[in-house]
Amino acid sequence: MKRALAAIFLTVFGFVLTLSAGAQNPSAQSADEADIRAAIKTQTDAWNRADIPAFMQTYENSPDTTFIGQKLRKGYKPILERYKQSYTSREQMGTLSFSDIDIRLLPSGCGKSDIALVTGKFHLNRTQHGEAAKDDGIFSLVWRKGSHGWKIILDHTS
Amino acid sequence: MKRALAAIFLTVFGFVLTLSAGAQNPSAQSADEADIRAAIKTQTDAWNRADIPAFMQTYENSPDTTFIGQKLRKGYKPILERYKQSYTSREQMGTLSFSDIDIRLLPSGCGKSDIALVTGKFHLNRTQHGEAAKDDGIFSLVWRKGSHGWKIILDHTS
Repeated sequence: MKRALAAIFLTVFGFVLTLSAGAQNPSAQSADEADIRAAIKTQTDAWNRADIPAFMQTYENSPDTTFIGQKLRKGYKPILERYKQSYTSREQMGTLSFSDIDIRLLPSGCGKSDIALVTGKFHLNRTQHGEAAKDDGIFSLVWRKGSHGWKIILDHTS
Repeated sequence: MKRALAAIFLTVFGFVLTLSAGAQNPSAQSADEADIRAAIKTQTDAWNRADIPAFMQTYENSPDTTFIGQKLRKGYKPILERYKQSYTSREQMGTLSFSDIDIRLLPSGCGKSDIALVTGKFHLNRTQHGEAAKDDGIFSLVWRKGSHGWKIILDHTS
């Protein structure tokens, strides 16, 4: 009887510990990570066919969406316009590749993740340069899961 | 009677709308913003008396805490060691000031904010330079509210 009680206690205690950790279950977490990796792949493919509007769809369409490059730009439309101004041809866009991608899902107080931090490096393989001079850099992104799936709400590239 | 029913309906509908918006109440939001501004002030004061360990206390003490400068560094201790190596004297640290601070609290699915994005510019007024060359830059920070209050979990400075 004592053993049975102890077993029940440990089960309940374990369950409470799991809840209090606010832990998302691992399969939901890996599904979110897979969704973000898929969005990055879609975005890269759009860049590599020189389709800036499709590339931009990975950003949240909001006046709060922020891009920090040489300076800070706020708002989906100003960021889109800046990309178009900085890369005016397929040759200036070249081929984009990412490396060292690290995805950190942040569990919220209610136990699911709707914010993720993504860091990594980019490389542009290209033959022509426009206003954007950099071929290599490091970036940090904040992603948020909303009604349209995972979208970038902050991009800092340096 | 019809009017009373309509009034009850509108009240309940309004209440449900408020809940579904996941809106944090404005005073809680401004309290969070005030807490973050106070943490930034404490951090700046620590820098300006050349106290790097106190300055670092504004970062979350976690192996996941990330700083991106010229390169990415992960972990509270490596970031602390890097600051100590880059700024070896009071003269190299100089006087730190921030400008254009923008704080964006992100409401989570359960209606409270435990993540905030902060962007801004820094300036160091100083007479000597060590390994860290920059006197001016732009930064984006991700803050998280945990058991020790609001702490920086990602710092990207360029």
